[in-house]
Amino acid sequence: MVEWRRDFHKYAESGWVEFRTASLVASRLEEWGYTVKAGKEVVDVNARMGVPPADFLKENEKRALDQGAVAKWLPSFSGGFTGVVGILKTNKPGPVIGLRFDMDALDIQESDSEDHVPQRDGYVSINEGMMHACGHDAHTSIGLGLAKLLSEMKDELSGTIKFIFQPAEEGVRGAKSMVEAGVMDDVDVFVASHIGTGIPAGEVVSGANGFLSTTKIDVTYTGVAAHAGGSPEEGKNALLAAASAVLNLHSIPRHSSGQSRVNVGVLKAGSGRNIIPASAHLKVETRGETIEINEFILENAINIIKGSAAMHDVDVHYEIVGEAKTSDSSARLKTYIEEVAKEVDEVRSIRSESPNAAGSEDATYMMDRVKKNGGLASYVIFGTTLAAGHHNEKFDIQEDSMIMAVKTLSKFVLNIDRLKLD
Amino acid sequence: MVEWRRDFHKYAESGWVEFRTASLVASRLEEWGYTVKAGKEVVDVNARMGVPPADFLKENEKRALDQGAVAKWLPSFSGGFTGVVGILKTNKPGPVIGLRFDMDALDIQESDSEDHVPQRDGYVSINEGMMHACGHDAHTSIGLGLAKLLSEMKDELSGTIKFIFQPAEEGVRGAKSMVEAGVMDDVDVFVASHIGTGIPAGEVVSGANGFLSTTKIDVTYTGVAAHAGGSPEEGKNALLAAASAVLNLHSIPRHSSGQSRVNVGVLKAGSGRNIIPASAHLKVETRGETIEINEFILENAINIIKGSAAMHDVDVHYEIVGEAKTSDSSARLKTYIEEVAKEVDEVRSIRSESPNAAGSEDATYMMDRVKKNGGLASYVIFGTTLAAGHHNEKFDIQEDSMIMAVKTLSKFVLNIDRLKLD
Amino acid sequence: MVEWRRDFHKYAESGWVEFRTASLVASRLEEWGYTVKAGKEVVDVNARMGVPPADFLKENEKRALDQGAVAKWLPSFSGGFTGVVGILKTNKPGPVIGLRFDMDALDIQESDSEDHVPQRDGYVSINEGMMHACGHDAHTSIGLGLAKLLSEMKDELSGTIKFIFQPAEEGVRGAKSMVEAGVMDDVDVFVASHIGTGIPAGEVVSGANGFLSTTKIDVTYTGVAAHAGGSPEEGKNALLAAASAVLNLHSIPRHSSGQSRVNVGVLKAGSGRNIIPASAHLKVETRGETIEINEFILENAINIIKGSAAMHDVDVHYEIVGEAKTSDSSARLKTYIEEVAKEVDEVRSIRSESPNAAGSEDATYMMDRVKKNGGLASYVIFGTTLAAGHHNEKFDIQEDSMIMAVKTLSKFVLNIDRLKLD
Amino acid sequence: MVEWRRDFHKYAESGWVEFRTASLVASRLEEWGYTVKAGKEVVDVNARMGVPPADFLKENEKRALDQGAVAKWLPSFSGGFTGVVGILKTNKPGPVIGLRFDMDALDIQESDSEDHVPQRDGYVSINEGMMHACGHDAHTSIGLGLAKLLSEMKDELSGTIKFIFQPAEEGVRGAKSMVEAGVMDDVDVFVASHIGTGIPAGEVVSGANGFLSTTKIDVTYTGVAAHAGGSPEEGKNALLAAASAVLNLHSIPRHSSGQSRVNVGVLKAGSGRNIIPASAHLKVETRGETIEINEFILENAINIIKGSAAMHDVDVHYEIVGEAKTSDSSARLKTYIEEVAKEVDEVRSIRSESPNAAGSEDATYMMDRVKKNGGLASYVIFGTTLAAGHHNEKFDIQEDSMIMAVKTLSKFVLNIDRLKLD
Repeated sequence: MVEWRRDFHKYAESGWVEFRTASLVASRLEEWGYTVKAGKEVVDVNARMGVPPADFLKENEKRALDQGAVAKWLPSFSGGFTGVVGILKTNKPGPVIGLRFDMDALDIQESDSEDHVPQRDGYVSINEGMMHACGHDAHTSIGLGLAKLLSEMKDELSGTIKFIFQPAEEGVRGAKSMVEAGVMDDVDVFVASHIGTGIPAGEVVSGANGFLSTTKIDVTYTGVAAHAGGSPEEGKNALLAAASAVLNLHSIPRHSSGQSRVNVGVLKAGSGRNIIPASAHLKVETRGETIEINEFILENAINIIKGSAAMHDVDVHYEIVGEAKTSDSSARLKTYIEEVAKEVDEVRSIRSESPNAAGSEDATYMMDRVKKNGGLASYVIFGTTLAAGHHNEKFDIQEDSMIMAVKTLSKFVLNIDRLKLD
Repeated sequence: MVEWRRDFHKYAESGWVEFRTASLVASRLEEWGYTVKAGKEVVDVNARMGVPPADFLKENEKRALDQGAVAKWLPSFSGGFTGVVGILKTNKPGPVIGLRFDMDALDIQESDSEDHVPQRDGYVSINEGMMHACGHDAHTSIGLGLAKLLSEMKDELSGTIKFIFQPAEEGVRGAKSMVEAGVMDDVDVFVASHIGTGIPAGEVVSGANGFLSTTKIDVTYTGVAAHAGGSPEEGKNALLAAASAVLNLHSIPRHSSGQSRVNVGVLKAGSGRNIIPASAHLKVETRGETIEINEFILENAINIIKGSAAMHDVDVHYEIVGEAKTSDSSARLKTYIEEVAKEVDEVRSIRSESPNAAGSEDATYMMDRVKKNGGLASYVIFGTTLAAGHHNEKFDIQEDSMIMAVKTLSKFVLNIDRLKLD
Repeated sequence: MVEWRRDFHKYAESGWVEFRTASLVASRLEEWGYTVKAGKEVVDVNARMGVPPADFLKENEKRALDQGAVAKWLPSFSGGFTGVVGILKTNKPGPVIGLRFDMDALDIQESDSEDHVPQRDGYVSINEGMMHACGHDAHTSIGLGLAKLLSEMKDELSGTIKFIFQPAEEGVRGAKSMVEAGVMDDVDVFVASHIGTGIPAGEVVSGANGFLSTTKIDVTYTGVAAHAGGSPEEGKNALLAAASAVLNLHSIPRHSSGQSRVNVGVLKAGSGRNIIPASAHLKVETRGETIEINEFILENAINIIKGSAAMHDVDVHYEIVGEAKTSDSSARLKTYIEEVAKEVDEVRSIRSESPNAAGSEDATYMMDRVKKNGGLASYVIFGTTLAAGHHNEKFDIQEDSMIMAVKTLSKFVLNIDRLKLD
Repeated sequence: MVEWRRDFHKYAESGWVEFRTASLVASRLEEWGYTVKAGKEVVDVNARMGVPPADFLKENEKRALDQGAVAKWLPSFSGGFTGVVGILKTNKPGPVIGLRFDMDALDIQESDSEDHVPQRDGYVSINEGMMHACGHDAHTSIGLGLAKLLSEMKDELSGTIKFIFQPAEEGVRGAKSMVEAGVMDDVDVFVASHIGTGIPAGEVVSGANGFLSTTKIDVTYTGVAAHAGGSPEEGKNALLAAASAVLNLHSIPRHSSGQSRVNVGVLKAGSGRNIIPASAHLKVETRGETIEINEFILENAINIIKGSAAMHDVDVHYEIVGEAKTSDSSARLKTYIEEVAKEVDEVRSIRSESPNAAGSEDATYMMDRVKKNGGLASYVIFGTTLAAGHHNEKFDIQEDSMIMAVKTLSKFVLNIDRLKLD
């Protein structure tokens, strides 16, 4: 697993361009006897969000091939359909168990400082501006380690085991497309997991609930340029629309039933000092402690985005580029996870809830679907010691934490009949 | 004239409620042999702007009667149609000469300081919150003085003399309605006049051009109130819409072809500190050095007014409550006015243009119509020494300046055949 | 009590002008044997907030006399020091029990509709623009009823009973001044109570915790007026500063540790459409689920209030006109209250917490002081059927709910030795 | 001249990095017998504005050497002191004549379309992102052509001829530094000239007056980043400060004494969607029809820039990166220019004023200094047919227009004793 993780780390691929990673995952799952579904079979064409431009996809696919992608699998993923599902049917009756592992890196330039272990030990990312700074390299490796282990213990298993390798979790862009492709429809018991998030090494959280529902929106205002000295009246000022949107977005009312958020994280407008800005681009996000609160903020945000364009007679285009729901881990499942975790030597403590205000996570889409179908779902966290915080250029995990994760999850699968389902 | 002026000053009546003033004007014109038209004959029902509420009109009509209005004429003016036109047909051929005098006071509480002459001499306004602080009491008296004089010299006159006593000049609300009623349609030569405006006593301006085209807009945003502590999300915040409008109205681009203006002079919003404001009222005005510039600012303003409502999902209602055009006094007419003014003893100097940046004036509507019909029009200023600036609570004129005005205008009428018309 | 309540209702007096009410309270307490402290003895001169102008105070004091205030007591209250404390020392040892009742009405015009009971039955407020629309008339009557009853049962009591009749609870302006005057310093057990607040008749809440910490701020921007057409550059625009403040105040960040609020409830700016606004007045409030959150919002608000003035080079003056803290009713005291309430026939149900998100309440200042001194404090709600919501022009209570309140509170005092104190 | 112009065009160098251009100019002037001053002798160290970072200067100096710069001269210019002055003293008495030619290119990527002549004929700019899109390549060539011609006619000349080759006119950054270095102090008669600007081929403008006084300001807000979901209260939002600045900058009052402008042409803020923006950069400019109006706008702008930072408790740094004054060409000099221009065959028409609203030009700094010292100054335009507007990626001039310019300017110098000086 350490080797795999370092390999994925070195060839970090960000959301929707996990061509090399996904091809290696698919290839290995197939080798170990899994039925593999890939690409458009498991990623709905219309439900993807925040997909990069076509030429960027093409360049990255080409690079993946140069960097050792398994050529056989690339056509499935071409165009950014980089999801993989591996299915292991046992001979014994039992539930369909879904396990989610995300594969994408972040758009961050990794540190080349000598005190950064991946740099020192030679597996720092060689892909410029892409870095595994959130541990998804470990997630993919844990998934593979677990898949290999379970394939070797097939006779001791019951039910069906479904490994779901998800693209584009960063920006909460990928999960919805796998849900819409039907991947979750037969899943009875579902676990998504994450490493780190501030939980110390040796500790397991059986079901984190703190995720905020969120929507990510890209907004572009398009006006008309004009010389600011010579003929200001001929311009349509996209920046004035954008600045009004910024101030007013932040003024969306607080909600009395829980936490809400809105942020304009990025604004870029204009082409030159003496030109009325003809374009402005915003990266916006809304969040809510409940789905309803997020929808309230979102609806207000869209009114503001449109209204500010109308004020300055400029065009506006906005696009939903990411979405996630709140999590609500099933109590019964959490109890079962706590039971099996107790039996793992490496687990030194267990918590039922994360102490940290979490951000957002689109595995919540999967959890929501499973629960709506009457199944159980939980979001498990495996603690590890971090060299630096998530999304930091010096982020690094303790690799032996992957052992704890594989052991816990394998016990989870092996003992599934101890979990009484309705 | 001094007696009349002090009487009008004491019983000051603001725009559209000049019931007493107009009834006295109509009564005297009739007495002196003028054909009098009044009320809806000379004020178009649909073209009035900024008319006060019905009950306010009714109260003021009642008060006018109590204060000595001529009862016979009140029915004509009832409901706020306080315009009067007096026509004197001579037996000799000649042009139709139009002369405009405005009658309305301002919504200002007059000073009760003993150094304010009207207070000292006992003719301070007794109508609370209404004051002749712009000299329209003198204008009305000049008009009457001139009308009486000319009626006595009828044999020496030629053509037709048309006295136009206009309501609601303040806020540029009344002229359009008289133009739309057809009052200007037969006028060949037109003079509107004003006293003061910074011109010293003894000086005459033959044709002021500096007026800005303007539009006055009342805006009301209507949202939904909610308790700001308990359920802020249930509110629709009219004040946020209004505040966005204020900032963005002021950001309408400058115009490269001339001066422009925009102002939000008054904003009132909200009912209590702990309530999301459900209403906001704005008094807005736009101006332009040309009609086109004013229209540019106005069009942008309306986009902003509507867009800011859309941003906060509140209703918006706006109403045009005043409008004026730019003036452009006819060169030929100015020359003639300079000639006759020279012959008046009290005139010590003559200028062809006002040195002061003027505000706006709706006689420009009348000038525009006359010129469009091929006639000549000018805006004449008669200088006077002011106790305090226009619209100040201690504004006061030098009464003998009215003599200079009547003499100049009577010479203007008497010698009209010296003005060669096409 | 009904008679008292209707009398207070008819002669409603708003915050800091409870001259008549306070004089009647003081007079009766004295009559029943209480040691009475009034005016500056119990209201700190420097800690009052949101006091009306001196002439308003004077007019209302004069009116109070005309409407039957007890002349002897007025000098104590003159200038707006309308607090009263009545102390009953028993002969038995025991704790000092503080009981808070607020006396002020709201600045609301009461309904004159015939379906409004006070109008129908002839005790509608005759004081224009003032109305008991929050039940403080009932609170004062309950306080008096309880005081009379206890004075008659003095032998059965132990410890010291301290009745605290507070002015200016609306706007959270008065409690701090009584705390700062030392009124709470010897109190061991404290109960503030409120009627209604959405709790049904027959129900008692033993200790409401939902109050938000809050600060009320009045802001005035002062710029320079100028003619908007003639010389806009000579103005300093107070409305632009205010509008910027409004938008930016609403954009203060949400706080991850709990609910926060900010509201600009009222904005009034400008004097005329064509004048650059030289003044703008805002009524602002901040709130927080904890005192720390409110302080965070407040600190940001003050930066914004000052910064927006600096932007437009106008002066700004702001004043804290109200403050309250969060409540945190003592668990032990709540349990005791539940015990005694159970023994009251009229009490049909008891809750330990209010289901309604409450606003703010400055009795929290008193609770805070008592608890800091090692005492116990609780905020008790007595349910009643409301004709219309609090602060509505048709608000009305069910008068017999006052019985339930007096019985519960008298049992509370009588059995105080059942409450084990440290 | 055509050859020179094409060479400069190909090796376009933007403001403060005209290393190659300036070295060739200095080298040739020296060769032709001019006394040459260069670098810090003619560019004041402290008065340069908008100088690029040191490493950018260094890279461009290196490139200049690679592209044929005259090595001998480079040390003078090193660090971005790329001004050159060439002085020709004649033996006859007479005035000091100053002639300004600017040398810098724009930060624009030149078109590689085959219908763009420089591309077709092989002298398109090979320096990425730099292009002579405003004709300064022609200006430099005209200056050199004129310098060569005059050096050959030295005996026919009188007084002193001073060629001023200015860096960094774009962004109005360079002139002030040459003025402050004393370059203009002995100049009696000064002409700055420009090609194109909408004037047709064959036409000369003897003295353009339409330039607006301007100031260019770079603004950076620096706040504190924080996770927008997890702990928004820990951020200090630089974008909110910037957005407030944008809206309020545009709301600076119009000025009644003439045209004014303000523009935020570029805004870049934030690093990621889910991060509170910790930085925001703005490119701002102000303009005025008079120096006083520009100063009024600038003073207001600085208040707004600072106040918006204070509102959001972020740091702000602003820097003046460009400045120009208004031009006011001397009437006597214009008349003389018209006389000599008439004698040039290529000149088909002469205007005394440009019909086009011009932008800004920092030769106005030089004109201002000369006039303050009692000299005469004018801004001359030589018409030419343009392939596309100034600052367009396909901008191109008609090369033979350079002949008209050289002939007119040489006649101007040769006949200088016809210009009667005081």
